Amino acid sequence: MSEALTERIKELEAEVDKLRSQLGERNGAGEDMELTPHSNEITDCKPDCTSSSKKKGKKGNKDRPLDFSVHPRRHVALRLAYMGWAYQGFAVQENTENTVEARLFEALLKTRLIQDRQSSNYHRCGRTDKGVSAFSQVISIDLRSTQFCGGVGVTLPENIDVSTKNKADISEFPYVKMLNRVLPQDIRILDWAPVAQDFSARFDCQSRTYRYYFPRGSLDVTLMADAAKRYEGTHDFRNLCKMDVGNGVLQFQRTILSASVKAAQPQQDANTDQYDLFIFEIKGLAFLYHQVRCMMALLLLIGQKLEAPEIIDQLLDVQNNPRKPQYSMAVDYPLILHDCHFDGLSWKQETEEVNHILAALQQHWTQTAVKTHILHGMIKALEAKGAAPSNHCWLVEGSRCKSYKPLLERPVCESLESRIEHFVKRGRLEREEGQNGGETIHRGKRSKHSHSGSILPETSS
Amino acid sequence: MSEALTERIKELEAEVDKLRSQLGERNGAGEDMELTPHSNEITDCKPDCTSSSKKKGKKGNKDRPLDFSVHPRRHVALRLAYMGWAYQGFAVQENTENTVEARLFEALLKTRLIQDRQSSNYHRCGRTDKGVSAFSQVISIDLRSTQFCGGVGVTLPENIDVSTKNKADISEFPYVKMLNRVLPQDIRILDWAPVAQDFSARFDCQSRTYRYYFPRGSLDVTLMADAAKRYEGTHDFRNLCKMDVGNGVLQFQRTILSASVKAAQPQQDANTDQYDLFIFEIKGLAFLYHQVRCMMALLLLIGQKLEAPEIIDQLLDVQNNPRKPQYSMAVDYPLILHDCHFDGLSWKQETEEVNHILAALQQHWTQTAVKTHILHGMIKALEAKGAAPSNHCWLVEGSRCKSYKPLLERPVCESLESRIEHFVKRGRLEREEGQNGGETIHRGKRSKHSHSGSILPETSS
Repeated sequence: MSEALTERIKELEAEVDKLRSQLGERNGAGEDMELTPHSNEITDCKPDCTSSSKKKGKKGNKDRPLDFSVHPRRHVALRLAYMGWAYQGFAVQENTENTVEARLFEALLKTRLIQDRQSSNYHRCGRTDKGVSAFSQVISIDLRSTQFCGGVGVTLPENIDVSTKNKADISEFPYVKMLNRVLPQDIRILDWAPVAQDFSARFDCQSRTYRYYFPRGSLDVTLMADAAKRYEGTHDFRNLCKMDVGNGVLQFQRTILSASVKAAQPQQDANTDQYDLFIFEIKGLAFLYHQVRCMMALLLLIGQKLEAPEIIDQLLDVQNNPRKPQYSMAVDYPLILHDCHFDGLSWKQETEEVNHILAALQQHWTQTAVKTHILHGMIKALEAKGAAPSNHCWLVEGSRCKSYKPLLERPVCESLESRIEHFVKRGRLEREEGQNGGETIHRGKRSKHSHSGSILPETSS
Repeated sequence: MSEALTERIKELEAEVDKLRSQLGERNGAGEDMELTPHSNEITDCKPDCTSSSKKKGKKGNKDRPLDFSVHPRRHVALRLAYMGWAYQGFAVQENTENTVEARLFEALLKTRLIQDRQSSNYHRCGRTDKGVSAFSQVISIDLRSTQFCGGVGVTLPENIDVSTKNKADISEFPYVKMLNRVLPQDIRILDWAPVAQDFSARFDCQSRTYRYYFPRGSLDVTLMADAAKRYEGTHDFRNLCKMDVGNGVLQFQRTILSASVKAAQPQQDANTDQYDLFIFEIKGLAFLYHQVRCMMALLLLIGQKLEAPEIIDQLLDVQNNPRKPQYSMAVDYPLILHDCHFDGLSWKQETEEVNHILAALQQHWTQTAVKTHILHGMIKALEAKGAAPSNHCWLVEGSRCKSYKPLLERPVCESLESRIEHFVKRGRLEREEGQNGGETIHRGKRSKHSHSGSILPETSS
């Protein structure tokens, strides 16, 4: 028995070694933004004048319980940036710890800025999926505060005689620095803002902006730019998303404020190099599940001249096209939630923190840029030897067929009505007759979130 | 006992899961060049018209022993490309299986193109270190052949009556395709060439070209380009390498045919964007251990204006500067062995193979280019918020000191003579008096490679 166990241990140890060396590059673990390479060579100077030594977190506080009830708490907004490539998405999931939110809450608990998630009054602006990054994800939450003198969003502790507390103008906790010390390197707090008690990152967001990066390849980017304009305005996007009826998403009208396709480096607009990068940038009030990736998928088909730009208008015409044709959405890693906009917030940036983040991003960029150019050099050399470039579009999931089938000739997915019926039968949704003979549908008794109330759109992509 | 083993297994399984999710992105494992993303979404077409299905290797031959003695064998050159970032170097090592050579020999054995390494008459053009890539690494080796009719480099089997064999013009084994099927995706055979029996990839190489990619940052690339020229010619490079005296490398004169610093994209020469990439390209007959990385380190110091270009001439002047100052070499991942040149070889390319490699490189490039641009977008946005870029040079190992110490004022490493003495004392080198009172030094009885004979330069970097 133990021989079999020993064998299994050897197997697993070999697997761990192999995976570690595949993570290989010195910055492998979790796309580490800040790791300085080890060196066995003599360095330029003595080891103790290292400028990027990891700062240690608070020591010795772990075991001493903290009485949160005697501290002020304040409602704040936190702005996060993260590289989503190593995570299973933003939102906490049952089957994995490897989400951005899980890491965020670990940090909030470790720094004792919150007591627990449930009581922290937490809202998030959007969910991003596995592989999707963010430069401006915003959350709102109650954090422990130093401000016995009160302030925007501050709640003083009950039953404490605050007059005995020093009310001099003491600084707030350096939230950004405290959290960045303990967060993984590929998740960073950019800044924070004091907010009123009733502020919600989810409901008070004025607009959300996504970017999708893609190489020109053999795409007609001018056609794509024209097509993108057709997304602007208020439309029913049920054919350009993954319907999430079971979770109570029943209406699919969304407003797109702007949609564009432009070169990443402005001077390259006039070029025709297939290795130039372009950005599909889209700004809207709120988005449906996988909406941006479906919109991008259509643009890629248009760019490959497999569909005409009119296909967008046709799929937005849900009267004539009530059911979504089967097509793959665009892959995840080029997508980034670039901005979540809130009016009237006073973001408090800690200059040193932001400089650290910039330095770390530059280091990471250096590695990926160098590798990108090495690969490009190999590609150019092979092309010089006569190799023929593939026209395959690498940004769409799944394989490529030799014969293309137009979207409107394809099998279609279930209609909205059919899906509603499915969940009504299972008790997850309930129909209710209104006074004037109309009908409303809301979450049923068997819904995961079985509370009545209006159905609000999920915001994610 | 088995409870402890079971615990260990659980630990290891958790570690494997964690590492796998860190490798996260669908193309994580070993920088996979050819993996098509999985999709749970409906794809554009039926699953069975996939165009990039993995081809299966020979089935059922594994257990049937092959009698190599009845087959012709031929001496060939194979040209390899590999992404070195996930490997512990090219050369086989005692403490790890994770080398390019180990994978190569696994493939040669699996395809039964060789019987074993020892009898395969194997030479390699150069060794590349951990993290270093290659576009044109060349090896020479004896492979099994179909050519009973003989040919360049072909040895017919002894004791076989070849007259009974079909001597019609049958094709040679498709070496490239056979090996690429079983090699990991980040190691590819580009082509092969028939060579004479006495050809050696190591000794017959006319020149080797390396490239080192780096971002402009705040470097003075014009100064670096001027400085690079000083490397050209024949010089003693003992101060610009890691001396490998223990392995018998005793003379450090090497010839550099050309050395240049140029923009990766030619039109960017006139720009000043710190995010433009440049290439240090260097062509020489043979190189010492870590030579290119030391040369690059000096150029980086010159580019940062911490040293004058004359430092190169001074360090090449071993009369006046016989001992190497302590300095770090440049990091590994930007370095690639770009070309190994051999006169008069007739490289046999298999068009389909080369197209596959190009497609795979394009797919990989797409991922790294997209990530690079996402990071660049974040950097630009942070700079717009007022973050100050760091001047740290990310390409040198070790930390950066606030106060720079000029090379010629630093502590120096051991001299060549002192190192020789060290190994002579230990029996790994032996001094021998020549007839005219001169002295030669050769590998001693205790050397790892204890055979007498002239000491030839190791070629690696």
